[in-house]
Amino acid sequence: MQPMTKPSVRPEDGAVGVTEPRYLDLREPLALDCGKELSPVRIAYETYGALSPSKDNVILVCHALSGDAHAAGYSAHPTGESTRDGFRADERDASKQAGLGWWDGMIGPGKAFDTDKYYVVSTNLIAGCRGSTGPSSENPATGQPYGSDFPVITVADMVRAERFFLKELDIHELFAVAGGSLGGMQALEWAILYPDAVSAIIPIASTHALNAQGVAWNAIARNAIITDPDWQDGHYYRTGREPRTGMALARMVGHITYLSAASMKEKFGRRLQNKDDVSYSLTSHDFEVESYLHYQADKFVKRFDANTYIYTSRALTYFDLTRQYGDGSLERALAGVQAKTLLICFSSDWLYPPENSEVLAAALTANDKDVELHVIDAPYGHDCFLLEEARQTPMIRDFLARQ
Amino acid sequence: MQPMTKPSVRPEDGAVGVTEPRYLDLREPLALDCGKELSPVRIAYETYGALSPSKDNVILVCHALSGDAHAAGYSAHPTGESTRDGFRADERDASKQAGLGWWDGMIGPGKAFDTDKYYVVSTNLIAGCRGSTGPSSENPATGQPYGSDFPVITVADMVRAERFFLKELDIHELFAVAGGSLGGMQALEWAILYPDAVSAIIPIASTHALNAQGVAWNAIARNAIITDPDWQDGHYYRTGREPRTGMALARMVGHITYLSAASMKEKFGRRLQNKDDVSYSLTSHDFEVESYLHYQADKFVKRFDANTYIYTSRALTYFDLTRQYGDGSLERALAGVQAKTLLICFSSDWLYPPENSEVLAAALTANDKDVELHVIDAPYGHDCFLLEEARQTPMIRDFLARQ
Repeated sequence: MQPMTKPSVRPEDGAVGVTEPRYLDLREPLALDCGKELSPVRIAYETYGALSPSKDNVILVCHALSGDAHAAGYSAHPTGESTRDGFRADERDASKQAGLGWWDGMIGPGKAFDTDKYYVVSTNLIAGCRGSTGPSSENPATGQPYGSDFPVITVADMVRAERFFLKELDIHELFAVAGGSLGGMQALEWAILYPDAVSAIIPIASTHALNAQGVAWNAIARNAIITDPDWQDGHYYRTGREPRTGMALARMVGHITYLSAASMKEKFGRRLQNKDDVSYSLTSHDFEVESYLHYQADKFVKRFDANTYIYTSRALTYFDLTRQYGDGSLERALAGVQAKTLLICFSSDWLYPPENSEVLAAALTANDKDVELHVIDAPYGHDCFLLEEARQTPMIRDFLARQ
Repeated sequence: MQPMTKPSVRPEDGAVGVTEPRYLDLREPLALDCGKELSPVRIAYETYGALSPSKDNVILVCHALSGDAHAAGYSAHPTGESTRDGFRADERDASKQAGLGWWDGMIGPGKAFDTDKYYVVSTNLIAGCRGSTGPSSENPATGQPYGSDFPVITVADMVRAERFFLKELDIHELFAVAGGSLGGMQALEWAILYPDAVSAIIPIASTHALNAQGVAWNAIARNAIITDPDWQDGHYYRTGREPRTGMALARMVGHITYLSAASMKEKFGRRLQNKDDVSYSLTSHDFEVESYLHYQADKFVKRFDANTYIYTSRALTYFDLTRQYGDGSLERALAGVQAKTLLICFSSDWLYPPENSEVLAAALTANDKDVELHVIDAPYGHDCFLLEEARQTPMIRDFLARQ
């Protein structure tokens, strides 16, 4: 339970060293919200820091829609690109970025999730495509990849899988659960499903339920994939064809929703791509912003499975604490929470706007729960949770120190 | 030059009566910004009100991306649906909506563009699909529909076509040019290209140049169409296949950008479609907002040509007064404007945000031009220019009365 590699020096980037995913197979089938069972279930994971003898220093970090278990350090098997493909990634040293975990700035010695103190665990979500059981895994009933026969999963299913996974590691209590976006939804779900097992949660740039516009963006992204003829009703594995076109469209839509209009204006404006004038061509990418979106989408298509995108998008769209636990009342849904809560959100995040965190804070406060909310004034939209590491760090460190 | 039909009664809706498009063929080829010539050029148009003997009461209204010449009254050939498919259209009497012009609330006796005073002219843009020459028209060089061999056109090309069209009607001066969105861009372009010919312009919910996010949304929408295999490099006419899937995606993306997050929340929230619970199906439209988007997209695909969408989107993305006329300075671009300007924009419009109109007002003011700006506090996003008729009416009426 030690980190895979202890670096001799501790540079800011990749300070937890070179990491390698490990795999664990759950012993029991996983009962899902949809009524089906998933079996077998393999979980890919990484850990950073050391587990304390009393096992009281475990922090689970949960990834978002396009993430994986590689949250910190350098991957032992870099694909030549980072999962940190956020807005500012290309402004950093590309060689440093290659293989760097998606929350490396937050996890490591002396960082927000200080691996000198805490044992940080990161898993790939079920339905994932980076080592955990998902639609590209073999369906034991057919010997073929599940494809769209994979059962529809929910955030609660993801959290149950994380719970059973941790039990197999003989970890029964969490010092904290943290994550941004969908990761924050998991943190909230943990506090409701297992109130005795989690002391603190840190949902960042998250919500108790995506708003109507977010539901719509996700529906369009899924639809772009599903209507791609190469999706083949979800059974495209081993056919030599993949819904790359639909995935690229889905990613481009998603990408814009993660940025802010102001940051796009600042970064790209209306600059033309290597030209003094427009091309007067119907299909060329005249603007830098067009070219950037295509480049990012192409990168994403190469590293991410389309079915995983659909299943995960479906899960985060379904997520609704009010419907699931509150019978229409968020206050009632949160009544059983025992964890202390740190909410962080960002002024320019229009996909998971500050209002959503404020509503959560109000409902927790109405229940007399211990909750702290920070709205960080920052320009990078939803991507802030990946980028504004320096400003989140003292908030998280102080919150954890007070537990 | 009389309105086609004089109604015996004047109800609020369709007060200009039943209208029928007319067609006019330009006598000369149209020289385009791309260096090519377009010939022949047919313009579909409608008129409302009566031309004064001195021809000093002409107002040109210009349509937006998905509009046509049918701006007011009831169409003599209703397609069973209105081009007014804005956000609130379905809340009105559907039978009244059928065939009603897209700006009917603004054009008619006693309305903002008062047909008791003004002679209102509305044309279908070139590259259009509702009667004017466009990519679905016959290419004289081949005898086949142009498809993607249609030349790329600009907003300036659209305005030149409008100018030549009006000259054929022996109309050489305009009392005003008005329009929302792309229509407002045309009004601005008129004031720069033909400063002596236009006394007043009314750009509503418009801009001198789309911002980076708007450029990106348009790029995605075009890309959805172009990557649909049924687009067939733009030559899909008469093949029995059309890029319906790509068009539906493009429309859904566009549709969300025309609304506001707040209005979507109010109208749809997270309500489920005819169900007490989610379906746990990968592809069903569980949420009302998903169902609504698909319904609207299907309607749009039936009435609008995909190539027209691409060409028009390209034109509005290229539009950039600063680049075209200002050598980097908006102030310089507007130096030659003689028309008085009324700018109207809407607080919740995030696609053409109020900031853009404010920048225009500042640049006109810096040039000592006569400009008036109203920011209407309204919740319906960009669609406000079609919906907030009552609040725009006194602003426009007073502005026109002062000319």
